[in-house]
Amino acid sequence: MAHTLASNFNNFFNRLSPFQVIFIFYLSAVIIASILIGLPFLHKEGVHLSLIDIIFTAVSAVSVTGLTVVSTPDVFNTPGYFVLMFVLQFGGIGVMTLGTFIWLMLGQKIGLKRRQLIKTDQNRNTFSGMVSLIKQILIIIILIEAIGALILGIYFIQYFPTAGEAFIQGMFASVSATTNAGFDITGSSLVMFEHDYFVQMINMILLILGAIGFPVLIEIKDYLTHKKQDLFKFSLFTKLTSITFALLIVVGTILIYLLDRTHFFQGKSWHESLFYALFQSVTTRNGGLATMDVSEFTVPTLLVICILMFIGASPSSVGGGIRTTTFAITLLSVISYARGKRDVRVFGREIDPEDIFRSFIVVNTAVTIVGLAIILLNVFEPDFTLIQLMFEACSAFGTTGLSTGITADLHLPGKVIIIALMFIGRIGIFSFLFILRGKAPRAKYHYPKEPMIIG
Amino acid sequence: MAHTLASNFNNFFNRLSPFQVIFIFYLSAVIIASILIGLPFLHKEGVHLSLIDIIFTAVSAVSVTGLTVVSTPDVFNTPGYFVLMFVLQFGGIGVMTLGTFIWLMLGQKIGLKRRQLIKTDQNRNTFSGMVSLIKQILIIIILIEAIGALILGIYFIQYFPTAGEAFIQGMFASVSATTNAGFDITGSSLVMFEHDYFVQMINMILLILGAIGFPVLIEIKDYLTHKKQDLFKFSLFTKLTSITFALLIVVGTILIYLLDRTHFFQGKSWHESLFYALFQSVTTRNGGLATMDVSEFTVPTLLVICILMFIGASPSSVGGGIRTTTFAITLLSVISYARGKRDVRVFGREIDPEDIFRSFIVVNTAVTIVGLAIILLNVFEPDFTLIQLMFEACSAFGTTGLSTGITADLHLPGKVIIIALMFIGRIGIFSFLFILRGKAPRAKYHYPKEPMIIG
Ligand SMILES: [K+]
Ligand SMILES: [K+]
Repeated sequence: MAHTLASNFNNFFNRLSPFQVIFIFYLSAVIIASILIGLPFLHKEGVHLSLIDIIFTAVSAVSVTGLTVVSTPDVFNTPGYFVLMFVLQFGGIGVMTLGTFIWLMLGQKIGLKRRQLIKTDQNRNTFSGMVSLIKQILIIIILIEAIGALILGIYFIQYFPTAGEAFIQGMFASVSATTNAGFDITGSSLVMFEHDYFVQMINMILLILGAIGFPVLIEIKDYLTHKKQDLFKFSLFTKLTSITFALLIVVGTILIYLLDRTHFFQGKSWHESLFYALFQSVTTRNGGLATMDVSEFTVPTLLVICILMFIGASPSSVGGGIRTTTFAITLLSVISYARGKRDVRVFGREIDPEDIFRSFIVVNTAVTIVGLAIILLNVFEPDFTLIQLMFEACSAFGTTGLSTGITADLHLPGKVIIIALMFIGRIGIFSFLFILRGKAPRAKYHYPKEPMIIG
Repeated sequence: MAHTLASNFNNFFNRLSPFQVIFIFYLSAVIIASILIGLPFLHKEGVHLSLIDIIFTAVSAVSVTGLTVVSTPDVFNTPGYFVLMFVLQFGGIGVMTLGTFIWLMLGQKIGLKRRQLIKTDQNRNTFSGMVSLIKQILIIIILIEAIGALILGIYFIQYFPTAGEAFIQGMFASVSATTNAGFDITGSSLVMFEHDYFVQMINMILLILGAIGFPVLIEIKDYLTHKKQDLFKFSLFTKLTSITFALLIVVGTILIYLLDRTHFFQGKSWHESLFYALFQSVTTRNGGLATMDVSEFTVPTLLVICILMFIGASPSSVGGGIRTTTFAITLLSVISYARGKRDVRVFGREIDPEDIFRSFIVVNTAVTIVGLAIILLNVFEPDFTLIQLMFEACSAFGTTGLSTGITADLHLPGKVIIIALMFIGRIGIFSFLFILRGKAPRAKYHYPKEPMIIG
C-alpha cells in the first residue's frame, strides 16, 4: 500500500520538470496556508482579515519573508501561533529541501563523492530520494530549533509573567529565527531586547544556521564527526558561500555604522553601536528580525541594506535573493576581467564558465524584475518615498522581511506586487526562468558569429 | 620633417596600450579645456568662476555631457561661445574617433571586408590610420553640423533681433545637438521652442545622427551610394544597434506618456503630448537638451528616464552609458536563456559568447559604479531627494546632461563624484576596466572546475 503510494508519487514527480514541482508546491502551500490563516477560531476576538491580507500573510509565511500587513499578536490567539509556527516550519523546510533538490537535479556534473555527502541514493530525482533528503533536513532544523527554544524559553522566564508564556515566546522566536521567517509575537520584532545582547546573540546564531545553506550544515556535521579533521576537505561551494556570507556580515556591519555614525549611532556606546550594526547586518542575510526601527536610518544606510537584502542568503538555505554564491561569482568575474584574466579562480579552483554565465543571467534578471517592481510601486503608491518603496521591494525579493513600516498601508496593487516579489524571490530567479522556459531543444546547428562592440 | 613627426607619434602610440592613449587623451583634453574655459576675457563682465566649476564645465564639455554648474549665457561672451563650441566639437569628435579606434583595436576578429568599410589601411593601430579615421569622422560630422546650422540659422531669424545673433544661435544649437553636448546659450535649453515642432524635429535628427554611431553612418553612406541597393547587406552590428536605438526611443516615448498621463500630460493636446514625450525620449539617447523642466515629471517617469540614460547611445558615437548593443545583448541573452536556448541568435546570426560575457561584465560593473556613486551622493548631499541624486548620477554616467536642476547646488564632494561619473561614462566601462587592468598574461594552465549553485 505504502509502496504503491510511493510509486504513484514517483511517476507523478517523474512526469513533471523539477521547476514545475516547485511551482505546484508553492501554489498548494500558499492555498493551504491561506485557508489555515483565514480560520476565524485562530484569531483573537473581533478580528476581521480581508482576503488580500490573508493571502499576503500566507505568502509571507510560506516564503518565510516576514513582511506583515497585520500585527501577528493582535490578530492571532495561542492556537493561531502554533498554526503559524507550523506554516513557517513547513515553508522553511520546504524552501531548504527544494533548494537542495534543484541543486541535485541540475548538478549532473556532481560526482559520487558529493552525492554521498548529501546522502541521497542513486535514484536522486525520485520520491524516495526526496523523502531521504527531507528527513535529513527535518532532523537538522528541528534539532537547532529545539536547542534554541530551550535556551530562549528558560531565559525568557525573567521577561514574561508565566513560564508557559516564556516557553511559547521562546519556541516561536526560535522557529522564526531558524527558518529566518522574521515573524514575531512580541508586536515589535526584537526591539524589546535591544539591550539584551544574549537574546541577540542566540537569535543571530539561529539566523545564520538557517541562512548559511543545508550543504554547508551537512559538511560542518561531517567535519565535526570526521576522525582525521586535518585531512577533511571542505568543498569549493562551502568555502565560497561561507566566506561570502561572513564578509557580507562584516562589511555590512562596518558600512551601517559608518554611514549612520553621525545620525542613529550618535551618542550611543561602542557596545550598543556594535550590536545594533551587527544585528541589522546579520538580519539582512535573511532573518528580517530587527532590534530597532530601521526607518530611523539615513538614506545611504537604507540603500546599503537594500543591496544586502537583494544579495540575500546562501543557496539551499531558507533565504532568498540572488544568493551569496551568485553575488560572489559575478564579483569575482568582474575583478578577474579587470585584472586581464579570463578564467575565474578561487581557492585553487576554477569556476565553470557555465556557472559564471548563469550567475550573470540571475543577477541581470533580478535587477530587471526588482527595477520594474520599484517603478510600478511608485506608480501605485505615490504617497510613499522612493527609498521606502525600494526598501520594501528589495526586502520582498530577498524574502528578508525588514520594512520601514509601510507594508500595512500599501494599497491592493502594491500588496500584489510585493506578493509577486516574495514569490519570485522565494523560488529563485533560476527556477523562475526555468518555469517560463519552454522545452526547446538545444540548438544542433550554429549560425555564423559576428563580432560586436560592447560598452 | 612631417614624416619624422608622424613616425615619432607612431612610436609613441605603439608603446602605449590603446586604453592608455584614451586616458591620456581625455586628461590632456580636460586640462586644455579648463585653461580655455577659465580665460577671463571669454567671460562676461563681473563673472568669477571657482576652480571646481571650471573643471566641472571642462569635463562636461569634453565628455559632451552638458550638465552645468553655471548658466552658459550668463558666464560666456560671444568669443566664449566659439571657444566652447570648439571644445564641444573637439570632445564629440574625439569621443567618436576613440570609440571607433577601440573597436578597430579590439576587433582582431574583424575581417577584411569590415576593415575596408571603415576605410583604414592595414596599419590600423598606427598614427596614419588614426589620421585617416579622424578625417572621415570630421567630414561627416562637420557636414551634418553645417546643414543643421544653416537650416536653424535661417529659421531662427524670426526668433532673434539680428540675423547675426540668429546664426550664432543656430550654429551653437547645431553643434550642441550633433555632438549631443546638451549645452545651450538660450539659458533654458530648448524650452523656448516647446511649441515649435520644426526646431524640435531638426534637433532630434541631429541628436540621432550624432548618437547612432559612426559605423552606422558609414554603412548608411555606403548604402546610399551603392549601385545595387537591394544587394547591399547591413552588418549585424548596424542592424542590432539601430533597431535597439529605435525601439528605445519608441518604448521611451510610450512609457513617459503613460506614466505621466495624469500629471504632466494632463490637459495637453495630443500633438503637444506627443512632442514632449518624443523629444524627452530622444534626448535620453544622449542629447541632454530638453523642451521642458524634467523635474515636473513624477518619480516613475524619472526612474524610466534614469534607465534610458544609463543605457545611453550606440558604441562609436558621441554618446555614453553602457551603450545600446550591450543592453541588447544582455537582454537577448536573458530571453534566450529563459526560452531554454544557450545560443543567442539575432537576424540569423549568433552572438559570440565572448561578446555576451563582455556585455555582462560591462552591465554589472556599470551598475556597481553608479550604485556606489548614488550612495556616496546621498551621503554628501542629504538635502536632495534620492530620485534627484539618482537622476543626476545616471545622467552623468550616460553623459546625457539632463538634470532635475540640482547640479549648480551640489557641494564640492557631489561635484567631484559627478565629474568622475562623466569621465567613466565617457571613456566607457570597457575601456575603464582595461585601464585598471595589469598586463597579466592569459592563463596557460587550468585549475580543476567544480560545480556551483547559482541563484
Ligand atoms: K525573512
Ligand atoms: K549629452
